[in-house]
Amino acid sequence: MNVLLIYAHPEPQSLNGSLRDFIVAHLRGAGHSVQVSDLYAMRWKSALDADDFPQRDTGRRFSPSADSKQAFTTGTQTPDVAAEQDKLRWADLVIFQFPLWWFTMPAILKGWFDRVYAYGFAYGRGEHSEARWGERYGEGAFQGKRAMLVVSTGGWADHYAERGINGPIDDLLFPIQHGVLFYPGFEVLPPVVSFKSGSMTPQRHAELLERLGARLDGAMTDAPIPYRRQNYGDYEIPALTLKPELGAQRRGFALHLEEAQAAGAQAQS
Amino acid sequence: MNVLLIYAHPEPQSLNGSLRDFIVAHLRGAGHSVQVSDLYAMRWKSALDADDFPQRDTGRRFSPSADSKQAFTTGTQTPDVAAEQDKLRWADLVIFQFPLWWFTMPAILKGWFDRVYAYGFAYGRGEHSEARWGERYGEGAFQGKRAMLVVSTGGWADHYAERGINGPIDDLLFPIQHGVLFYPGFEVLPPVVSFKSGSMTPQRHAELLERLGARLDGAMTDAPIPYRRQNYGDYEIPALTLKPELGAQRRGFALHLEEAQAAGAQAQS
Repeated sequence: MNVLLIYAHPEPQSLNGSLRDFIVAHLRGAGHSVQVSDLYAMRWKSALDADDFPQRDTGRRFSPSADSKQAFTTGTQTPDVAAEQDKLRWADLVIFQFPLWWFTMPAILKGWFDRVYAYGFAYGRGEHSEARWGERYGEGAFQGKRAMLVVSTGGWADHYAERGINGPIDDLLFPIQHGVLFYPGFEVLPPVVSFKSGSMTPQRHAELLERLGARLDGAMTDAPIPYRRQNYGDYEIPALTLKPELGAQRRGFALHLEEAQAAGAQAQS
Repeated sequence: MNVLLIYAHPEPQSLNGSLRDFIVAHLRGAGHSVQVSDLYAMRWKSALDADDFPQRDTGRRFSPSADSKQAFTTGTQTPDVAAEQDKLRWADLVIFQFPLWWFTMPAILKGWFDRVYAYGFAYGRGEHSEARWGERYGEGAFQGKRAMLVVSTGGWADHYAERGINGPIDDLLFPIQHGVLFYPGFEVLPPVVSFKSGSMTPQRHAELLERLGARLDGAMTDAPIPYRRQNYGDYEIPALTLKPELGAQRRGFALHLEEAQAAGAQAQS
Protein backbone atom coordinates (compact mmCIF):
# COMPACT_ATOMS: atom_id res chain seq x y z
CA MET A 1 0.00 0.00 0.00
CA ASN A 2 0.91 3.66 -0.31
CA VAL A 3 1.41 5.39 3.03
CA LEU A 4 1.74 9.10 3.62
CA LEU A 5 3.19 10.18 6.97
CA ILE A 6 2.47 13.77 7.97
CA TYR A 7 4.99 14.46 10.72
CA ALA A 8 5.07 17.52 12.96
CA HIS A 9 7.85 17.62 15.53
CA PRO A 10 10.71 20.16 15.51
CA GLU A 11 13.48 17.89 16.84
CA PRO A 12 14.69 14.77 14.98
CA GLN A 13 16.48 13.46 18.11
CA SER A 14 13.21 13.16 20.03
CA LEU A 15 10.82 10.37 20.92
CA ASN A 16 8.72 11.45 17.96
CA GLY A 17 11.76 11.37 15.71
CA SER A 18 12.45 7.78 16.74
CA LEU A 19 8.82 6.81 16.15
CA ARG A 20 8.88 8.41 12.72
CA ASP A 21 11.99 6.46 11.77
CA PHE A 22 10.42 3.28 13.08
CA ILE A 23 7.21 3.81 11.12
CA VAL A 24 9.06 4.41 7.87
CA ALA A 25 11.42 1.44 8.32
CA HIS A 26 8.66 -0.90 9.46
CA LEU A 27 6.38 -0.11 6.55
CA ARG A 28 9.13 -0.22 3.93
CA GLY A 29 10.32 -3.48 5.42
CA ALA A 30 6.85 -4.89 4.79
CA GLY A 31 7.01 -3.82 1.15
CA HIS A 32 4.91 -0.68 1.31
CA SER A 33 5.66 2.66 -0.35
CA VAL A 34 6.09 5.55 2.07
CA GLN A 35 6.23 9.30 1.58
CA VAL A 36 6.94 11.62 4.52
CA SER A 37 5.92 15.24 4.83
CA ASP A 38 8.21 16.48 7.60
CA LEU A 39 6.49 19.80 8.17
CA TYR A 40 9.25 21.43 10.22
CA ALA A 41 11.96 20.30 7.81
CA MET A 42 9.86 21.63 4.91
CA ARG A 43 9.42 24.92 6.79
CA TRP A 44 5.71 24.55 6.08
CA LYS A 45 3.79 27.86 5.93
CA SER A 46 1.23 27.64 8.71
CA ALA A 47 -1.04 30.66 8.29
CA LEU A 48 -3.75 30.53 5.63
CA ASP A 49 -3.91 34.03 4.12
CA ALA A 50 -4.32 35.91 0.84
CA ASP A 51 -0.75 35.06 -0.19
CA ASP A 52 -1.97 31.50 -0.73
CA PHE A 53 -3.97 32.69 -3.73
CA PRO A 54 -1.54 34.67 -5.88
CA GLN A 55 -3.97 34.96 -8.81
CA ARG A 56 -7.03 35.94 -6.81
CA ASP A 57 -9.16 38.94 -7.74
CA THR A 58 -7.68 41.60 -5.48
CA GLY A 59 -10.61 43.89 -6.21
CA ARG A 60 -12.72 41.76 -3.88
CA ARG A 61 -12.12 41.31 -0.19
CA PHE A 62 -10.24 38.14 0.66
CA SER A 63 -12.48 35.19 1.52
CA PRO A 64 -10.74 32.03 2.80
CA SER A 65 -13.44 29.77 1.35
CA ALA A 66 -14.32 31.61 -1.89
CA ASP A 67 -10.69 32.20 -2.85
CA SER A 68 -9.83 28.61 -1.95
CA LYS A 69 -12.63 27.39 -4.22
CA GLN A 70 -11.49 29.62 -7.06
CA ALA A 71 -7.85 28.56 -6.80
CA PHE A 72 -8.65 24.86 -6.48
CA THR A 73 -11.03 24.93 -9.44
CA THR A 74 -8.68 26.85 -11.73
CA GLY A 75 -5.46 25.08 -10.74
CA THR A 76 -3.90 28.23 -9.34
CA GLN A 77 -3.07 27.06 -5.85
CA THR A 78 0.45 27.49 -4.53
CA PRO A 79 2.79 24.58 -5.41
CA ASP A 80 3.28 23.51 -1.78
CA VAL A 81 -0.45 23.02 -1.31
CA ALA A 82 -0.95 21.25 -4.65
CA ALA A 83 1.93 18.88 -3.85
CA GLU A 84 0.36 17.82 -0.55
CA GLN A 85 -2.97 17.26 -2.27
CA ASP A 86 -1.24 15.00 -4.80
CA LYS A 87 0.27 13.00 -1.95
CA LEU A 88 -3.18 12.58 -0.44
CA ARG A 89 -4.56 11.33 -3.78
CA TRP A 90 -1.70 8.82 -3.96
CA ALA A 91 -2.07 7.47 -0.42
CA ASP A 92 -4.11 4.51 0.79
CA LEU A 93 -3.26 5.26 4.41
CA VAL A 94 -2.35 8.62 5.95
CA ILE A 95 -0.68 8.76 9.36
CA PHE A 96 -0.60 12.03 11.27
CA GLN A 97 2.11 12.01 13.91
CA PHE A 98 2.49 14.81 16.41
CA PRO A 99 2.97 15.71 20.09
CA LEU A 100 -0.21 16.83 21.82
CA TRP A 101 0.36 20.52 22.61
CA TRP A 102 -2.44 22.13 24.58
CA PHE A 103 -4.71 19.18 23.93
CA THR A 104 -4.52 19.33 20.14
CA MET A 105 -2.03 19.38 17.29
CA PRO A 106 0.87 21.88 16.96
CA ALA A 107 0.16 25.01 14.93
CA ILE A 108 2.27 23.86 11.98
CA LEU A 109 0.04 20.80 11.49
CA LYS A 110 -3.15 22.79 11.96
CA GLY A 111 -1.83 25.04 9.20
CA TRP A 112 -1.36 22.02 6.97
CA PHE A 113 -5.06 21.23 7.29
CA ASP A 114 -6.14 24.87 7.02
CA ARG A 115 -4.24 25.24 3.73
CA VAL A 116 -4.29 21.77 2.09
CA TYR A 117 -7.97 21.13 2.81
CA ALA A 118 -9.20 23.33 -0.06
CA TYR A 119 -12.83 24.14 -0.83
CA GLY A 120 -13.92 21.60 -3.44
CA PHE A 121 -11.27 19.16 -2.24
CA ALA A 122 -11.98 18.46 1.44
CA TYR A 123 -15.22 20.44 1.86
CA GLY A 124 -17.88 22.16 -0.23
CA ARG A 125 -18.58 19.01 -2.27
CA GLY A 126 -21.76 17.34 -3.46
CA GLU A 127 -25.45 18.09 -3.71
CA HIS A 128 -27.52 19.52 -0.90
CA SER A 129 -31.08 18.17 -0.99
CA GLU A 130 -33.68 16.64 1.30
CA ALA A 131 -31.90 13.30 1.07
CA ARG A 132 -28.25 14.36 1.16
CA TRP A 133 -26.29 17.22 2.66
CA GLY A 134 -23.12 17.30 0.64
CA GLU A 135 -20.36 14.71 0.53
CA ARG A 136 -19.07 14.69 4.06
CA TYR A 137 -18.93 12.59 7.22
CA GLY A 138 -18.28 9.28 5.54
CA GLU A 139 -18.23 10.47 1.93
CA GLY A 140 -15.90 12.78 0.05
CA ALA A 141 -12.55 12.95 -1.67
CA PHE A 142 -10.86 10.55 0.75
CA GLN A 143 -13.49 7.81 0.72
CA GLY A 144 -11.73 4.46 0.55
CA LYS A 145 -8.65 5.79 2.30
CA ARG A 146 -7.72 5.30 5.94
CA ALA A 147 -6.18 7.65 8.47
CA MET A 148 -4.61 7.18 11.89
CA LEU A 149 -3.20 9.48 14.56
CA VAL A 150 0.06 8.71 16.36
CA VAL A 151 0.15 11.06 19.32
CA SER A 152 2.55 11.59 22.21
CA THR A 153 1.67 13.40 25.39
CA GLY A 154 3.63 14.19 28.52
CA GLY A 155 0.61 13.64 30.77
CA TRP A 156 -0.40 10.48 32.55
CA ALA A 157 -2.94 8.02 31.13
CA ASP A 158 -5.11 8.49 34.23
CA HIS A 159 -5.38 12.21 33.53
CA TYR A 160 -6.84 11.35 30.10
CA ALA A 161 -9.10 8.52 31.30
CA GLU A 162 -12.87 8.49 31.22
CA ARG A 163 -13.02 10.52 34.44
CA GLY A 164 -9.60 12.18 34.17
CA ILE A 165 -9.23 15.92 34.61
CA ASN A 166 -8.02 16.61 31.07
CA GLY A 167 -11.06 14.91 29.58
CA PRO A 168 -11.05 11.49 27.90
CA ILE A 169 -8.43 11.25 25.16
CA ASP A 170 -11.04 9.97 22.70
CA ASP A 171 -13.16 13.05 23.28
CA LEU A 172 -10.19 15.40 23.03
CA LEU A 173 -9.29 13.83 19.68
CA PHE A 174 -12.89 13.81 18.37
CA PRO A 175 -12.65 17.24 16.70
CA ILE A 176 -9.66 15.89 14.75
CA GLN A 177 -10.72 12.31 14.12
CA HIS A 178 -14.36 13.04 13.33
CA GLY A 179 -14.27 16.70 12.29
CA VAL A 180 -11.04 16.72 10.27
CA LEU A 181 -10.59 13.11 9.11
CA PHE A 182 -14.00 11.43 8.90
CA TYR A 183 -15.51 14.63 7.48
CA PRO A 184 -13.80 14.35 4.05
CA GLY A 185 -14.28 10.59 3.93
CA PHE A 186 -11.38 8.89 5.71
CA GLU A 187 -12.03 5.73 7.66
CA VAL A 188 -10.34 6.56 10.96
CA LEU A 189 -8.39 3.92 12.84
CA PRO A 190 -8.18 4.14 16.64
CA PRO A 191 -5.22 6.34 17.60
CA VAL A 192 -1.88 5.18 18.95
CA VAL A 193 -1.29 7.32 22.03
CA SER A 194 1.77 7.36 24.27
CA PHE A 195 1.59 8.89 27.73
CA LYS A 196 4.34 10.17 30.06
CA SER A 197 6.42 10.65 26.95
CA GLY A 198 8.90 12.92 28.69
CA SER A 199 10.08 10.09 30.94
CA MET A 200 10.14 7.16 28.54
CA THR A 201 12.14 4.16 29.81
CA PRO A 202 13.81 1.69 27.44
CA GLN A 203 11.19 -0.91 28.38
CA ARG A 204 8.23 1.39 27.78
CA HIS A 205 9.83 2.53 24.51
CA ALA A 206 10.17 -1.07 23.37
CA GLU A 207 6.56 -1.79 24.31
CA LEU A 208 5.42 1.28 22.40
CA LEU A 209 7.28 0.20 19.27
CA GLU A 210 5.75 -3.25 19.52
CA ARG A 211 2.25 -1.81 19.86
CA LEU A 212 2.86 0.63 17.02
CA GLY A 213 4.23 -2.11 14.77
CA ALA A 214 1.16 -4.25 15.33
CA ARG A 215 -1.09 -1.34 14.50
CA LEU A 216 0.84 -0.64 11.29
CA ASP A 217 0.54 -4.30 10.32
CA GLY A 218 -3.22 -4.17 10.83
CA ALA A 219 -3.81 -0.78 9.31
CA MET A 220 -5.73 -1.99 6.26
CA THR A 221 -7.68 -4.70 8.07
CA ASP A 222 -8.37 -3.42 11.61
CA ALA A 223 -11.86 -2.06 12.24
CA PRO A 224 -12.09 1.73 12.02
CA ILE A 225 -13.90 3.85 14.61
CA PRO A 226 -17.57 3.27 13.68
CA TYR A 227 -18.67 6.87 13.21
CA ARG A 228 -22.18 7.20 11.82
CA ARG A 229 -22.33 8.30 8.20
CA GLN A 230 -24.30 11.46 7.53
CA ASN A 231 -26.40 10.58 4.52
CA TYR A 232 -27.50 7.06 5.38
CA GLY A 233 -30.54 7.58 7.56
CA ASP A 234 -29.25 8.31 11.07
CA TYR A 235 -29.59 12.10 10.87
CA GLU A 236 -32.45 14.45 10.09
CA ILE A 237 -31.73 16.52 6.96
CA PRO A 238 -31.02 19.45 6.91
CA ALA A 239 -30.94 19.85 10.70
CA LEU A 240 -28.32 17.06 10.88
CA THR A 241 -29.37 16.16 14.40
CA LEU A 242 -29.30 12.49 15.31
CA LYS A 243 -32.77 10.98 14.99
CA PRO A 244 -34.58 10.83 18.35
CA GLU A 245 -34.77 7.04 18.50
CA LEU A 246 -30.99 6.66 18.19
CA GLY A 247 -28.26 6.92 20.81
CA ALA A 248 -30.62 6.69 23.74
CA GLN A 249 -27.95 5.75 26.26
CA ARG A 250 -25.39 8.26 25.10
CA ARG A 251 -24.48 11.92 25.33
CA GLY A 252 -21.92 14.17 23.72
CA PHE A 253 -19.54 12.93 21.05
CA ALA A 254 -20.29 9.26 21.68
CA LEU A 255 -23.72 9.79 20.10
CA HIS A 256 -22.01 9.69 16.74
CA LEU A 257 -20.77 6.11 17.07
CA GLU A 258 -22.84 3.27 15.66
CA GLU A 259 -24.30 1.40 18.60
CA ALA A 260 -23.57 -2.22 17.78
CA GLN A 261 -19.86 -1.73 17.27
CA ALA A 262 -19.05 1.12 19.58
CA ALA A 263 -17.65 -0.83 22.50
CA GLY A 264 -13.98 -1.51 22.11
CA ALA A 265 -13.32 0.53 19.02
CA GLN A 266 -11.99 3.56 20.84
CA ALA A 267 -8.37 4.21 21.73
CA GLN A 268 -6.42 1.22 22.95
CA SER A 269 -3.66 3.07 24.65
CA MET B 1 -10.62 47.45 33.18
CA ASN B 2 -7.78 46.41 30.91
CA VAL B 3 -8.86 44.29 27.96
CA LEU B 4 -6.60 42.37 25.61
CA LEU B 5 -8.13 41.24 22.32
CA ILE B 6 -6.28 38.46 20.53
CA TYR B 7 -7.66 38.57 17.00
CA ALA B 8 -7.04 36.00 14.27
CA HIS B 9 -8.72 36.69 10.93
CA PRO B 10 -6.81 37.48 7.72
CA GLU B 11 -9.32 39.96 6.19
CA PRO B 12 -10.24 43.28 7.85
CA GLN B 13 -13.32 43.66 5.60
CA SER B 14 -14.94 40.54 7.05
CA LEU B 15 -17.59 39.79 9.61
CA ASN B 16 -14.79 39.19 12.09
CA GLY B 17 -13.22 42.52 11.18
CA SER B 18 -16.49 44.28 11.93
CA LEU B 19 -16.85 42.46 15.24
CA ARG B 20 -13.30 43.38 16.21
CA ASP B 21 -13.99 47.05 15.50
CA PHE B 22 -17.22 46.85 17.47
CA ILE B 23 -15.52 45.24 20.47
CA VAL B 24 -12.78 47.87 20.58
CA ALA B 25 -15.18 50.81 20.17
CA HIS B 26 -17.71 49.44 22.64
CA LEU B 27 -15.14 48.83 25.36
CA ARG B 28 -13.33 52.15 24.87
CA GLY B 29 -16.70 53.91 24.86
CA ALA B 30 -17.33 52.41 28.29
CA GLY B 31 -14.03 53.78 29.57
CA HIS B 32 -11.93 50.63 29.40
CA SER B 33 -8.37 50.34 28.10
CA VAL B 34 -7.98 48.02 25.13
CA GLN B 35 -4.96 46.49 23.44
CA VAL B 36 -5.33 44.42 20.27
CA SER B 37 -2.97 41.72 19.06
CA ASP B 38 -3.97 41.41 15.39
CA LEU B 39 -2.02 38.25 14.65
CA TYR B 40 -2.24 38.41 10.86
CA ALA B 41 -1.33 42.11 10.79
CA MET B 42 1.62 41.34 13.11
CA ARG B 43 2.65 38.47 10.83
CA TRP B 44 2.82 36.35 13.97
CA LYS B 45 5.25 33.41 13.77
CA SER B 46 3.12 30.30 14.21
CA ALA B 47 5.51 27.40 14.53
CA LEU B 48 7.24 26.84 17.86
CA ASP B 49 10.79 25.72 17.05
CA ALA B 50 14.41 26.09 18.11
CA ASP B 51 14.58 29.59 16.57
CA ASP B 52 12.40 30.74 19.46
CA PHE B 53 15.31 30.19 21.83
CA PRO B 54 18.28 32.01 20.29
CA GLN B 55 20.48 31.56 23.37
CA ARG B 56 19.74 27.92 23.98
CA ASP B 57 22.49 25.35 24.46
CA THR B 58 22.83 23.98 20.95
CA GLY B 59 24.94 21.11 22.26
CA ARG B 60 21.75 19.50 23.56
CA ARG B 61 18.86 18.34 21.43
CA PHE B 62 16.03 20.84 21.25
CA SER B 63 13.27 20.28 23.80
CA PRO B 64 10.16 22.47 23.49
CA SER B 65 9.49 22.37 27.22
CA ALA B 66 13.05 22.41 28.64
CA ASP B 67 14.21 25.19 26.31
CA SER B 68 11.05 27.15 27.01
CA LYS B 69 11.69 26.86 30.74
CA GLN B 70 15.29 27.95 30.33
CA ALA B 71 14.42 30.97 28.17
CA PHE B 72 11.53 32.07 30.38
CA THR B 73 13.62 31.80 33.56
CA THR B 74 16.63 33.65 32.18
CA GLY B 75 14.74 36.36 30.28
CA THR B 76 16.05 35.20 26.92
CA GLN B 77 12.77 34.65 25.09
CA THR B 78 12.22 36.33 21.72
CA PRO B 79 10.80 39.88 21.99
CA ASP B 80 7.51 38.99 20.28
CA VAL B 81 6.76 36.32 22.88
CA ALA B 82 7.82 38.48 25.83
CA ALA B 83 5.62 41.33 24.58
CA GLU B 84 2.53 39.12 24.47
CA GLN B 85 3.27 37.84 27.96
CA ASP B 86 3.45 41.46 29.19
CA LYS B 87 0.05 42.13 27.62
CA LEU B 88 -1.36 39.13 29.45
CA ARG B 89 0.04 40.38 32.77
CA TRP B 90 -1.58 43.77 32.11
CA ALA B 91 -5.02 42.44 31.16
CA ASP B 92 -8.01 41.86 33.42
CA LEU B 93 -9.99 40.32 30.56
CA VAL B 94 -8.64 38.55 27.47
CA ILE B 95 -10.90 38.00 24.48
CA PHE B 96 -9.88 35.49 21.81
CA GLN B 97 -11.70 36.17 18.53
CA PHE B 98 -11.42 33.81 15.58
CA PRO B 99 -13.33 31.91 12.90
CA LEU B 100 -13.82 28.22 13.66
CA TRP B 101 -11.71 26.41 11.05
CA TRP B 102 -11.95 22.64 11.18
CA PHE B 103 -13.67 22.79 14.56
CA THR B 104 -10.92 24.72 16.33
CA MET B 105 -8.85 27.88 16.05
CA PRO B 106 -6.79 28.88 12.97
CA ALA B 107 -3.14 27.80 12.99
CA ILE B 108 -1.86 31.33 13.63
CA LEU B 109 -3.76 31.50 16.93
CA LYS B 110 -2.70 28.00 17.94
CA GLY B 111 0.84 29.17 17.35
CA TRP B 112 0.24 32.10 19.67
CA PHE B 113 -0.61 29.69 22.48
CA ASP B 114 2.17 27.26 21.58
CA ARG B 115 4.77 30.04 21.81
CA VAL B 116 3.43 32.52 24.40
CA TYR B 117 2.41 29.86 26.90
CA ALA B 118 5.95 29.28 28.16
CA TYR B 119 7.00 26.68 30.70
CA GLY B 120 6.97 28.43 34.08
CA PHE B 121 4.45 30.96 32.81
CA ALA B 122 1.38 28.97 31.72
CA TYR B 123 2.42 25.48 32.78
CA GLY B 124 5.04 23.74 34.90
CA ARG B 125 4.22 25.79 37.99
CA GLY B 126 3.78 24.95 41.65
CA GLU B 127 4.44 22.05 43.97
CA HIS B 128 3.45 18.48 43.26
CA SER B 129 2.48 16.63 46.45
CA GLU B 130 -0.27 14.42 47.82
CA ALA B 131 -2.47 17.46 48.32
CA ARG B 132 -1.71 19.53 45.21
CA TRP B 133 -0.66 18.76 41.66
CA GLY B 134 0.86 21.98 40.47
CA GLU B 135 -0.85 25.30 39.89
CA ARG B 136 -3.31 24.51 37.16
CA TYR B 137 -7.00 24.09 36.43
CA GLY B 138 -8.20 27.03 38.45
CA GLU B 139 -4.83 28.24 39.74
CA GLY B 140 -1.81 29.67 37.97
CA ALA B 141 -0.43 32.84 36.46
CA PHE B 142 -3.79 34.05 35.20
CA GLN B 143 -5.79 33.53 38.37
CA GLY B 144 -8.04 36.54 38.89
CA LYS B 145 -8.25 37.23 35.16
CA ARG B 146 -11.12 36.35 32.87
CA ALA B 147 -11.19 35.06 29.30
CA MET B 148 -13.89 34.74 26.64
CA LEU B 149 -14.05 33.29 23.14
CA VAL B 150 -15.80 35.14 20.30
CA VAL B 151 -16.18 32.57 17.54
CA SER B 152 -17.78 32.62 14.09
CA THR B 153 -18.73 29.52 12.15
CA GLY B 154 -20.31 29.00 8.76
CA GLY B 155 -22.33 26.02 9.97
CA TRP B 156 -25.84 25.97 11.31
CA ALA B 157 -26.67 26.09 15.02
CA ASP B 158 -28.53 22.77 14.68
CA HIS B 159 -25.38 21.07 13.41
CA TYR B 160 -23.63 22.13 16.65
CA ALA B 161 -26.56 21.34 18.97
CA GLU B 162 -26.59 18.68 21.68
CA ARG B 163 -27.38 15.98 19.08
CA GLY B 164 -25.94 17.75 16.03
CA ILE B 165 -23.56 15.94 13.71
CA ASN B 166 -20.57 18.21 14.37
CA GLY B 167 -20.82 17.61 18.11
CA PRO B 168 -22.08 20.13 20.66
CA ILE B 169 -20.29 23.46 20.38
CA ASP B 170 -19.56 23.44 24.13
CA ASP B 171 -17.79 20.11 23.80
CA LEU B 172 -15.86 21.20 20.70
CA LEU B 173 -14.63 24.26 22.59
CA PHE B 174 -13.80 22.34 25.79
CA PRO B 175 -10.18 21.62 24.81
CA ILE B 176 -9.73 25.39 24.42
CA GLN B 177 -11.86 26.72 27.24
CA HIS B 178 -10.87 24.12 29.83
CA GLY B 179 -7.52 22.90 28.50
CA VAL B 180 -6.02 26.19 27.30
CA LEU B 181 -7.78 28.87 29.37
CA PHE B 182 -8.92 27.35 32.68
CA TYR B 183 -5.67 25.40 32.91
CA PRO B 184 -3.43 28.44 33.64
CA GLY B 185 -6.06 30.01 35.89
CA PHE B 186 -8.46 32.07 33.77
CA GLU B 187 -12.10 32.21 34.76
CA VAL B 188 -13.77 31.40 31.44
CA LEU B 189 -16.95 33.18 30.40
CA PRO B 190 -19.43 31.35 28.16
CA PRO B 191 -18.47 31.92 24.52
CA VAL B 192 -20.18 34.23 22.05
CA VAL B 193 -20.78 32.08 18.98
CA SER B 194 -22.26 33.15 15.65
CA PHE B 195 -23.58 30.55 13.22
CA LYS B 196 -24.24 30.76 9.46
CA SER B 197 -21.68 33.53 9.40
CA GLY B 198 -21.24 33.34 5.64
CA SER B 199 -24.80 34.47 5.04
CA MET B 200 -25.21 37.15 7.69
CA THR B 201 -28.23 39.44 7.10
CA PRO B 202 -28.31 43.03 8.40
CA GLN B 203 -30.87 42.00 10.99
CA ARG B 204 -28.86 39.03 12.25
CA HIS B 205 -25.72 41.18 12.27
CA ALA B 206 -27.50 43.79 14.41
CA GLU B 207 -28.73 41.11 16.78
CA LEU B 208 -25.23 39.71 17.06
CA LEU B 209 -23.78 43.10 17.94
CA GLU B 210 -26.46 43.60 20.58
CA ARG B 211 -25.73 40.22 22.11
CA LEU B 212 -21.98 40.82 21.98
CA GLY B 213 -22.34 44.27 23.54
CA ALA B 214 -24.35 42.87 26.45
CA ARG B 215 -21.72 40.21 27.03
CA LEU B 216 -18.94 42.81 27.01
CA ASP B 217 -20.90 44.89 29.53
CA GLY B 218 -21.24 41.89 31.81
CA ALA B 219 -17.75 40.51 31.35
CA MET B 220 -16.53 41.24 34.87
CA THR B 221 -19.77 40.31 36.63
CA ASP B 222 -21.32 37.44 34.63
CA ALA B 223 -20.87 33.96 36.07
CA PRO B 224 -18.01 32.01 34.48
CA ILE B 225 -18.31 28.41 33.35
CA PRO B 226 -18.17 26.52 36.67
CA TYR B 227 -15.28 24.18 35.91
CA ARG B 228 -14.14 22.17 38.90
CA ARG B 229 -10.83 23.30 40.39
CA GLN B 230 -8.13 20.65 40.56
CA ASN B 231 -6.69 21.06 44.04
CA TYR B 232 -9.86 21.59 46.08
CA GLY B 233 -11.06 18.08 46.80
CA ASP B 234 -12.96 16.93 43.71
CA TYR B 235 -10.12 14.90 42.20
CA GLU B 236 -7.93 12.07 43.45
CA ILE B 237 -4.26 13.09 43.56
CA PRO B 238 -2.11 12.18 41.68
CA ALA B 239 -4.48 10.18 39.41
CA LEU B 240 -6.55 13.34 38.86
CA THR B 241 -9.67 11.33 38.20
CA LEU B 242 -12.93 12.74 39.48
CA LYS B 243 -13.86 11.16 42.82
CA PRO B 244 -16.34 8.30 42.41
CA GLU B 245 -19.16 9.96 44.31
CA LEU B 246 -19.16 13.03 42.02
CA GLY B 247 -20.73 13.57 38.61
CA ALA B 248 -22.99 10.54 38.85
CA GLN B 249 -25.38 11.66 36.12
CA ARG B 250 -22.71 12.84 33.70
CA ARG B 251 -20.22 11.56 31.15
CA GLY B 252 -17.43 13.08 29.13
CA PHE B 253 -16.42 16.71 29.45
CA ALA B 254 -19.51 17.68 31.45
CA LEU B 255 -18.10 15.72 34.40
CA HIS B 256 -15.79 18.65 35.02
CA LEU B 257 -18.57 21.15 35.75
CA GLU B 258 -19.65 21.77 39.33
CA GLU B 259 -23.06 20.20 39.70
CA ALA B 260 -25.10 22.92 41.41
CA GLN B 261 -24.33 25.59 38.86
CA ALA B 262 -23.87 23.62 35.68
CA ALA B 263 -27.28 24.15 34.13
CA GLY B 264 -27.45 27.31 32.10
CA ALA B 265 -23.80 28.28 32.30
CA GLN B 266 -22.87 26.84 28.93
CA ALA B 267 -22.94 28.69 25.61
CA GLN B 268 -25.91 30.94 25.08
CA SER B 269 -25.68 31.22 21.35
